[in-house]
Amino acid sequence: MSLLTVGSVAFDAIETPFGKTDKIVGGAGTYISLASSFFMDNQKIISVVGSDFPSNVLVDMNSRGIDTTGLQVKKGEKTFFWSGKYHNDMNSRDTLITELNVLEHFDPIVPDSYQDSAYIMLGNLSPLVQSTVIERMKERPKLIAMDTMNFWMDIAMDDLKKTISLVDVLIVNDEEARQLTDEYALVTAAKEILKMGPNYVIIKKGEHGALLFSANQMFFAPALPLAEVFDPTGAGDTFAGGFMGYIAASDDQSFENMKRAVIYGSAMASFCVEKFGTERLLEINQKDINERVKAFNDLSSFDLKN
Amino acid sequence: MSLLTVGSVAFDAIETPFGKTDKIVGGAGTYISLASSFFMDNQKIISVVGSDFPSNVLVDMNSRGIDTTGLQVKKGEKTFFWSGKYHNDMNSRDTLITELNVLEHFDPIVPDSYQDSAYIMLGNLSPLVQSTVIERMKERPKLIAMDTMNFWMDIAMDDLKKTISLVDVLIVNDEEARQLTDEYALVTAAKEILKMGPNYVIIKKGEHGALLFSANQMFFAPALPLAEVFDPTGAGDTFAGGFMGYIAASDDQSFENMKRAVIYGSAMASFCVEKFGTERLLEINQKDINERVKAFNDLSSFDLKN
Repeated sequence: MSLLTVGSVAFDAIETPFGKTDKIVGGAGTYISLASSFFMDNQKIISVVGSDFPSNVLVDMNSRGIDTTGLQVKKGEKTFFWSGKYHNDMNSRDTLITELNVLEHFDPIVPDSYQDSAYIMLGNLSPLVQSTVIERMKERPKLIAMDTMNFWMDIAMDDLKKTISLVDVLIVNDEEARQLTDEYALVTAAKEILKMGPNYVIIKKGEHGALLFSANQMFFAPALPLAEVFDPTGAGDTFAGGFMGYIAASDDQSFENMKRAVIYGSAMASFCVEKFGTERLLEINQKDINERVKAFNDLSSFDLKN
Repeated sequence: MSLLTVGSVAFDAIETPFGKTDKIVGGAGTYISLASSFFMDNQKIISVVGSDFPSNVLVDMNSRGIDTTGLQVKKGEKTFFWSGKYHNDMNSRDTLITELNVLEHFDPIVPDSYQDSAYIMLGNLSPLVQSTVIERMKERPKLIAMDTMNFWMDIAMDDLKKTISLVDVLIVNDEEARQLTDEYALVTAAKEILKMGPNYVIIKKGEHGALLFSANQMFFAPALPLAEVFDPTGAGDTFAGGFMGYIAASDDQSFENMKRAVIYGSAMASFCVEKFGTERLLEINQKDINERVKAFNDLSSFDLKN
C-alpha cells in the first residue's frame, strides 16, 4: 500500500567526537523516506526545499521509488539548515544553528495524486503543518503515525495535543514522553498518551531500545549493543521510516505486525548511526537488513523450557 | 545440584521517596539465598552476623532449605549495618552510614559439609574474602559467579582483578563495567572483561535490562517496565540469586540455559523492587514467578514471518 511521508528535506552540518561534516543532505523526510524505500516502491513525500538544493538528490529519491510531486522547490529561497554538535556520550547535543528558511511559511500542499495514500508518516514538524496535511486528505488514511519533539512541547503544546488527538501512532523518545505527560514512569506516560487519542505509542529509549504500547499490550525491542555510535543524527527518523515502511508494505496493522515493524525500524536505525548522515543507509541492501534483523532476533530470543 | 552463596547478612535502613524503614534485614547473602531458594532446596550460605542478629531469621532461612552451618554468629559483636537514601529518580543513592562491624575481620570458613558445592555465587564482598572461599574449596566447582561493586575498584583493583581471574561469570552493572575496563561501549567493556578470565559477563542496566556475553554470543534481557519502583535495594543481589539458583537447579551451563537464567533473575529482581527490602520476596510463590517470567516472554517475543 502507498505511504505518504511528510517531513523536512534539509541541510545538516554535524559534529561528533569522531569528526565533522560540511553541509550534507538530511532532514526527517529524507531519513524517513530513505528508510521506508527498502520496504516499498510506491511512496510519496510532502516537503519543501530552496533552489539551493541539489536536484540530483531529488532524482535519486525518484529512482528509489519516492514520488516527489509534493516536494515544493521554492525559487530564490534557501533550504532549511540545522547544525549541531554531539557531546562525548553521544546522548546529548547542542544545536549550533537553526535556519528555518523555506520551512518558516511552509504550506503543505497535498497533490491530488497523493489522495490514495493509505498510510501517513508525519515526521517532526510544526504540529500545525502536520494537522493541515491530515485535514487535506479527502479520505481518512488507514493509519497515521507522527513523530514530534520537545521543541513543540515548549512553544506549541496546545496545537501539538490537537494534532496528537488526530493520529493513530505517536512516536516519541523517553524524555519527550515524560515532558508531554508530566509522568516519569514510561508505563504511566504511555497510558496518558493513549488517553490523548492515539491507539499506539512508541517510546524510543535510544541505546536502550524502544517500547510499543497499545491499551492492553506492551512490547520491548532492544537496541543492538554497538561498539561505536558514529553519528546519531536521523536515527529516530530512520526508525520511524523503517517502522511505517514495514507496516505499509505488509498492510497489516495488528499488534503482532507492529512488533515486527518496531524490530525493522530498530534495525534500520542501527545502520543509520554507523556513519555520518545518510551515508550508511545509502550503502546497505536487503540482505544487510535481513542479517541485522536476524541479529536482533538472536539477541533477544530465548526459549522457556516449560 | 548444590549452590553455595557467600555474602553479607546484615541490617539495612533505607529511605526512598516513598518512605523509610527502621533497621531491617538485608545484605547480599540474604537476597541471593532468598531468591535462589525458589529454585532449589539444598543450598548453603557462608556469612557472618553479630549476636544482635535475630535468630528467627536464621530459622526462617533453614526452613527455606538454606543450610546456615557456614554462617558464623560472633558473640558480643554487631552485625554489618548499611543505611542509604535514594534520590527521586531511584537510579542513584547516597550511603548515609556504613558500619562494617563483624565484616571487618571476616574469615570465611568453609565447613566440610559444604565441599560438595557444585555452584558458587560470590556476593559483593571484599575480593580477598571472595578469593579465600575459592581457595578453600578442595575441588573446583562447576561454575563460580561473582558480583562486585565500584567500591572495590576504587580501593582494591589489583585484588579484585585477581579474584575476577578465578571466576566463570562476572556480574556487574553498566557503570561498574565501564570503570573496570575504562571502556564506555558495553560491548567493548564486556570483551575486555572476558580477557580478564571469566567466560561469561552479565552487565546489568537497571531499568534498561541486562546483557549476557560470552566470547561469541550475546543476549539481551529487558527489564519489565514498571509503573513504580518502590525500593531498589537488593535488586542486583536478587537478580544474581535467581540467575544462579536457576543454573544450579537445572545443572546446565549452556548459553541457552544461561539466557533463561538471566530471564529468571530479572523476574526475581522485578519483584524485589515492589516493596521495601525483602518484603515482596517473602510473599511470592512459584506461580507468581511463572506468571512474571511469562510477562517477560510476552514483552520481548516477536515472530519474524519470513
